[in-house]
Amino acid sequence: MSSPVHRVSLGDTWSRQVHPDIDSERHAQSFDVERLTNILDGGAQNTACRRRVESIIHSDPEFSGQDNYFMTQNERYEAAMRKTFHTQMLIQRLGWSEKESVYAHRALSGDTVLGVHKIFLKALRSLGSEEQIAKWEPLCKTYQIIATYAQTELGHGTYLQGLETEATYDPATQEFVIHSPTITATKWWPGDLGRSATHALVLAQLICSGARRGMHGFIVPIRSLQDHTPLPGITVGDIGPKMNFDQLDNGFLRLDHVRVPRENMLNRFAQVLPDGTYIKLGTEQSNYLSMVVTRVEILLGEILPHLQKACVVAVRYSVIRRQSRLRPSDPEAKILDYQTQQHKLFPPLAMSYAFHFLAVSILEFFQRSYSAILDRDFSLLPELHALSTGAKAMMADFCIQGAEMCRRACGGHGYSKLSGLPSLVTRVSASSIYEGENTVLYLQVARLIKDSVHQLQTLTQSGADQHEAWNQTTVIHLQAAKAHCYYTSVKSFSDALQKLEDEPAIQQVLKRLCHLHALHGILTNSGDFLHDGFLSGAQVDMVRTAYLDLFLLIRKDAILLTDAFDFTDQCLHSALGCYDGNVYERLFQWAQKSPTNTQGNPAYEKYIRPLLQSWRSKL
Amino acid sequence: MSSPVHRVSLGDTWSRQVHPDIDSERHAQSFDVERLTNILDGGAQNTACRRRVESIIHSDPEFSGQDNYFMTQNERYEAAMRKTFHTQMLIQRLGWSEKESVYAHRALSGDTVLGVHKIFLKALRSLGSEEQIAKWEPLCKTYQIIATYAQTELGHGTYLQGLETEATYDPATQEFVIHSPTITATKWWPGDLGRSATHALVLAQLICSGARRGMHGFIVPIRSLQDHTPLPGITVGDIGPKMNFDQLDNGFLRLDHVRVPRENMLNRFAQVLPDGTYIKLGTEQSNYLSMVVTRVEILLGEILPHLQKACVVAVRYSVIRRQSRLRPSDPEAKILDYQTQQHKLFPPLAMSYAFHFLAVSILEFFQRSYSAILDRDFSLLPELHALSTGAKAMMADFCIQGAEMCRRACGGHGYSKLSGLPSLVTRVSASSIYEGENTVLYLQVARLIKDSVHQLQTLTQSGADQHEAWNQTTVIHLQAAKAHCYYTSVKSFSDALQKLEDEPAIQQVLKRLCHLHALHGILTNSGDFLHDGFLSGAQVDMVRTAYLDLFLLIRKDAILLTDAFDFTDQCLHSALGCYDGNVYERLFQWAQKSPTNTQGNPAYEKYIRPLLQSWRSKL
Repeated sequence: MSSPVHRVSLGDTWSRQVHPDIDSERHAQSFDVERLTNILDGGAQNTACRRRVESIIHSDPEFSGQDNYFMTQNERYEAAMRKTFHTQMLIQRLGWSEKESVYAHRALSGDTVLGVHKIFLKALRSLGSEEQIAKWEPLCKTYQIIATYAQTELGHGTYLQGLETEATYDPATQEFVIHSPTITATKWWPGDLGRSATHALVLAQLICSGARRGMHGFIVPIRSLQDHTPLPGITVGDIGPKMNFDQLDNGFLRLDHVRVPRENMLNRFAQVLPDGTYIKLGTEQSNYLSMVVTRVEILLGEILPHLQKACVVAVRYSVIRRQSRLRPSDPEAKILDYQTQQHKLFPPLAMSYAFHFLAVSILEFFQRSYSAILDRDFSLLPELHALSTGAKAMMADFCIQGAEMCRRACGGHGYSKLSGLPSLVTRVSASSIYEGENTVLYLQVARLIKDSVHQLQTLTQSGADQHEAWNQTTVIHLQAAKAHCYYTSVKSFSDALQKLEDEPAIQQVLKRLCHLHALHGILTNSGDFLHDGFLSGAQVDMVRTAYLDLFLLIRKDAILLTDAFDFTDQCLHSALGCYDGNVYERLFQWAQKSPTNTQGNPAYEKYIRPLLQSWRSKL
Repeated sequence: MSSPVHRVSLGDTWSRQVHPDIDSERHAQSFDVERLTNILDGGAQNTACRRRVESIIHSDPEFSGQDNYFMTQNERYEAAMRKTFHTQMLIQRLGWSEKESVYAHRALSGDTVLGVHKIFLKALRSLGSEEQIAKWEPLCKTYQIIATYAQTELGHGTYLQGLETEATYDPATQEFVIHSPTITATKWWPGDLGRSATHALVLAQLICSGARRGMHGFIVPIRSLQDHTPLPGITVGDIGPKMNFDQLDNGFLRLDHVRVPRENMLNRFAQVLPDGTYIKLGTEQSNYLSMVVTRVEILLGEILPHLQKACVVAVRYSVIRRQSRLRPSDPEAKILDYQTQQHKLFPPLAMSYAFHFLAVSILEFFQRSYSAILDRDFSLLPELHALSTGAKAMMADFCIQGAEMCRRACGGHGYSKLSGLPSLVTRVSASSIYEGENTVLYLQVARLIKDSVHQLQTLTQSGADQHEAWNQTTVIHLQAAKAHCYYTSVKSFSDALQKLEDEPAIQQVLKRLCHLHALHGILTNSGDFLHDGFLSGAQVDMVRTAYLDLFLLIRKDAILLTDAFDFTDQCLHSALGCYDGNVYERLFQWAQKSPTNTQGNPAYEKYIRPLLQSWRSKL
């Protein structure tokens, strides 16, 4: 069997030897790790392409992320803009494809900016007419403009109808007057808006011929292309510090009667004629299309890798860390040999795989239905919406939980930013909000699910107002939606395994993870299964026994299953999670570079010295 | 009924009017909020004393925490040292009592340093002889030295026996030679060690007359009292960036054969005679005493307030935030009126109260038993250890979960540091680690609990080695320990309510929270209750109905129940959680002060402008 490529990080000065405690975990390979990596990449050519891009990025000091954990928000933004700029230069020079650009973005662990530029492009392609696409797409692609997508406001997020920004059509000049009527109408959160974007796709209430026509998209120039200053009527800036995404200038935008020409309203699905006549060309749902598109891509590209990386870091650390003894006569045990640690780490590891196959299956479904929707055949949109919605909410929830569990499983060192885990947790935490708040998304799924309807009917029949009844049963609907989504993830994992018949060793090791994932879902919700008589108490005991028995089988492959994700040390950027297992040396060396050590002590002369002497005079 | 004191934060420029959506929540008071505040404070005099201290602190610009969210780690450290210094000056000038000092610390939201100095003092009083206390306590109290407590090492945390630092007695000079034999022996994490402390209480393996005697405490001078430079043989510094506690210089320490006199070993429970003879004066457990002491104080002072503050912020925000409609004809609803939001926020709110009364009851028990232990009567130590251990682990777990739930219940704005919630979550997250890792603590409780013994016995009888059997059943033990701790918290809440008979209105409103807390515990673990036949499916349905019915009752008192904690706006330091409810104005104004807005754009000339022009030449 081929062994995985050893890629030990550069720039460290201690011995490059792989730690024997992790080396021994790789000796007996029950399956071909490289082959599993290929499967995850979608083919050996993809693996090769990804590694080629990674080696270019990682060997160029312009792309170093080494000091990220020590930087201020301004420094992070500048560094991310530097990397983005140089990536664009590489794309121009080497003629990288879309796929290679995506791999470059991943190699930089998302530590770039101008990502919303691409969301703008997707929205343009989904909501714009052919003429509009022909005009704006080239400007965007060549970065003659930098665009952002401005939907969320201070006062409203997921609830599109509540957005307050207004676009009033003025037939006299054939312009829209875009305006923020209240403080809560201030656009808030759009990425790249704070300090970078020259144009914004502003979602606003269209008002024409005196009637309100709902949300539509308008392309609004916001900064001068000459000197980057805000244009007249525009108030724009950065929303300040966040849990993570320091590199990204999430921004605010207030519009004071800003005029844009009639052609700047995206009009694939609705038009305003010169005299103000409003013509509708699509369904209400068409507005949601760009959210669906974005959501599907976020699943695979932005959310899941955080969980996978957290698992890699925590599992690798857990075979180096030794703590306490299983028997008094033994040496200290690797913490991964403790059942409690396995109980913490193996369910997230299983999810890392389950969600990969779920996301792939959704992506395939999406690709089958996308072109039909662009041709105004909306029949598949509700199902696509529900699927992407539920999967996004569930994956975000479990990826946050799982990443946090991995972080806590590393004890104190998981609290150090140098472990890389805080950053993974706070990044994935954002995913519960963007592209739809999770509770709201689940409830959208629940409205489709039949089972939870019963209680609603009972309440409605008993005379309760139907809206009141909906509100009084949402907690139950939420549970139903979550259970349905979980089931889908088990199903897609199991389906994917059936296709791996010519890889029996890999099929077997993944089957264990699939079973663990299914059993974990049952145990976590055993109350529901017992309550409804699907399982007896004795059966739940059997489930638990089977669940715990799987631990021992998964244990021996744990390191290989994390190696298979094939994250480079630079992508992980973790003192605990490097391939060679030299955890403590790296923690110690990285800490030395912290500004708290390299800069003088600002408090000694001012406060510490006077404090040490303050009572002396009085004694 | 008296109304709570209106204390609107200073320094904001918009209208000081209380937002009508929160004002209306305070109109009909079903109980006396001020009286409940007094109960939480332990008496009206305490409330008055606390407010007096707070008003002094909050009116002095030296103590402002306004820019905290915008500072670097070095700036936070300097600011915290400034506040600590000025607090000490106030204590000297005004002659503040211990209680007033604690209130001052809380008024500063823990944004101070030299807290470990106090842990050192406690350890000294617990483990030191009377002569040692007489020598070191005055030096400490008058800050002629700054001390830290150095236990945790790079390679070992909770498992004391695994610590590697050695203290070898040299009878020739009557000195101990303190040494870090490996990289993993490096002391890692002690607060105030990185840049501040002059002395460390170092926990080390005592070696005398060739025998290893286990962990003992040694007072080691580490920095010069003249110029603060590290003393010979000492390598000391800061461990770098963490999830939070930027203000605190958590440090590392390596000792290279550092010699300290024989008198520097704390010797209340063990002594080394000049010739190297070792005399034991206490039990093994005595070493744990200082951990127990610290743990009990952390419960009330450090962990719980974070959950309470998170509840205040999220509940207040939830009556200002309006999103979507309950009925199509209604105005947009306050999000606190949604059942899903109540399901997120009311259980943590109930826990905020339940844990307060649990912590108070533990503190009372502790005070009853402490003096006996100091007199070497260790009979109460195991129970105290189990109680403090289990309560600390449970409260940390639920406070982290609850604070994170509150953060997520605030949607996107909960991701902004300006909401105050990220800081609360990341601070309370640390509590799962310090003073004992939570899983380890639970298992210590489990070894006391009879119920989980059954499965262990079965396995042992079936021939499994007893240590292997313990490891294979730890997941079940963990559950048993958690259930026991939860039960204790319901019991202490219920006991406390019985003492409130002369306050029937307060008793009633708290009783609802107590019931919610109990029912929430049952529903979250309904599988266990159903499995073991304690409840039938129909009974679980009744529990759920009762649980959801309580929401409506608690809803109308929700704002008052959060007001009762009486946190000042400065203590909350949250744009979402201020008393007046002016959420959006404050978010907008605070963001303007961010360095991302007040400093120039470092990337424009270097990267944005060249990027905008890069393709132009080629088109």
